[in-house]
Amino acid sequence: MSAPSAQTYAVIGTGAVGGLYGAKLQQSGAEVHFLLHRDYEAVKHNGLRLESVWGDLHLTEVNAYDRPEAMPRCDVAIVALKTTQNYLLPYLLPPVLKPPGIVLLLQNGIDIEPQIQAFLPEVEIIGGLCFVCSNKVGPGHIHHLDYGQITLGAYGPHYQAQGITPTIAALAKIFQNAGVPIQQVEDLMLARWQKLVWNIPFNGLSVVLNATTAELMAAAVTRDLARRLMEEVAQGAAAYDREISPAFIAQMLANTAKMEPYLTSMKLDYDHHRPLELEAMFQNPLALAQAQGLDWPCIRSLYEQLQFLADRR
Amino acid sequence: MSAPSAQTYAVIGTGAVGGLYGAKLQQSGAEVHFLLHRDYEAVKHNGLRLESVWGDLHLTEVNAYDRPEAMPRCDVAIVALKTTQNYLLPYLLPPVLKPPGIVLLLQNGIDIEPQIQAFLPEVEIIGGLCFVCSNKVGPGHIHHLDYGQITLGAYGPHYQAQGITPTIAALAKIFQNAGVPIQQVEDLMLARWQKLVWNIPFNGLSVVLNATTAELMAAAVTRDLARRLMEEVAQGAAAYDREISPAFIAQMLANTAKMEPYLTSMKLDYDHHRPLELEAMFQNPLALAQAQGLDWPCIRSLYEQLQFLADRR
Repeated sequence: MSAPSAQTYAVIGTGAVGGLYGAKLQQSGAEVHFLLHRDYEAVKHNGLRLESVWGDLHLTEVNAYDRPEAMPRCDVAIVALKTTQNYLLPYLLPPVLKPPGIVLLLQNGIDIEPQIQAFLPEVEIIGGLCFVCSNKVGPGHIHHLDYGQITLGAYGPHYQAQGITPTIAALAKIFQNAGVPIQQVEDLMLARWQKLVWNIPFNGLSVVLNATTAELMAAAVTRDLARRLMEEVAQGAAAYDREISPAFIAQMLANTAKMEPYLTSMKLDYDHHRPLELEAMFQNPLALAQAQGLDWPCIRSLYEQLQFLADRR
Repeated sequence: MSAPSAQTYAVIGTGAVGGLYGAKLQQSGAEVHFLLHRDYEAVKHNGLRLESVWGDLHLTEVNAYDRPEAMPRCDVAIVALKTTQNYLLPYLLPPVLKPPGIVLLLQNGIDIEPQIQAFLPEVEIIGGLCFVCSNKVGPGHIHHLDYGQITLGAYGPHYQAQGITPTIAALAKIFQNAGVPIQQVEDLMLARWQKLVWNIPFNGLSVVLNATTAELMAAAVTRDLARRLMEEVAQGAAAYDREISPAFIAQMLANTAKMEPYLTSMKLDYDHHRPLELEAMFQNPLALAQAQGLDWPCIRSLYEQLQFLADRR
């Protein structure tokens, strides 16, 4: 891996997440190239605008591209698409990576890395879990409302824990230098299960019950339901020798109760008639649980309800 | 019990169910007294109108009352309130019954009979399960769209099976004479569990997913979810030594797939901002399951979602 300052970055998907973190990297002096689709013309001419709790920012000069073949090959590809777009990655990633290359996957869910490793066997994959409240409000125009930390963990075959690798440590420095809080973790799979502990109940229930996190936490019945969903996630994690304690679940519930009323990403996707991230956030975890003989009745029920609602659209 | 023809009937709750069956009894020559609340003036002056697949009917002379004390004591009280109104029964039932009296409970759910037996220990309670598609479309104006059979079973302490009692046999004759199809069953609890096999998934999911039975049966995910909910009901029944076979469940699903698109009673209640029958249809079954150490994760999840939606109103 080259020296951090010399690294170049290809942001694949310049929306609420890719736009935010890509803009921060560019602002800190890094060379960043942005792949866009619908917003290409707007960003090429007007740049990227960020209204952020970290300070507002307007990048007037942006390296914008409308197809991966037009981009220079970069050291790091930052994947910030919704996972529902991941079927495009075999076309988008190979042209933008300087081999062997690093892929930083800023996506929720689980079991996405193996799909990328399958068509890019030499690439180094880093999972990044974003704890951020950020929305795209217009072409190249992003509102970053709260939070923003990224948890970084290295992917290895079958999610074997890789420890803190040199690549993670280097990426952490670059992001921290750009003002982005970073947590480095030794075990990516544990981090992904931990994030699912929150994502499965609150993304799922917010869509099915048309509710904010605050409403779900205010009622005893949905607090109980969220807790039971979390306990099933913990059982899934345990089947892969990752421990998620009752104390972690209690803390997660307590934190959620203290949050501002918040529409989850899946609820926003649903309300805006976008596809839901059901594969990464529900189907893959269910398949992992099933592979270990787990039944997951509550999560399966919630998934089936979500799939029904998504298909009806 | 007096001779059928001489029996008198007090209909408690003259809506889609009580109005339909009370009108049929009166048309057949029985003496029927109707307790009404909001529709009292309308029915007193205009009678009862029935548009029915069994033939239309207009009863211009109706014994209508606005309070139970005004009614003559009758041999049989037909309870056709929604179960959400059952807290009124200790006030409504005693004044209208000729002791010891018979109560015919035309309600869904389970574990309602013991509540009535508690304040009327001498009364003979018959459970009646109506398989009927009937709506009140105006004061004293009922649309009976399809089906109409009543399953009759005698209640005994702790739902011990009572066999075909003389009272059931007599009531069956009276209803059949009035053109109402009757099924007599030896074991009321089994009949109630069997009806819950349908009511729990389809009433519950129709509300949470804003869907007709046809939509729920058309999607593989909700067919699977309905089946899993039914299997939990069957486990509850088995804990009380009542067998509900996989073949029964398969038949129930196949029948539902063949039904006309249909809004369930709970969905109609929800859409009309009426209270939901959650106690009789979900809470009581859950308590019975829990008393036998059963977990019922799918049904509990569905109940908690429904309770959240009901309370938010």
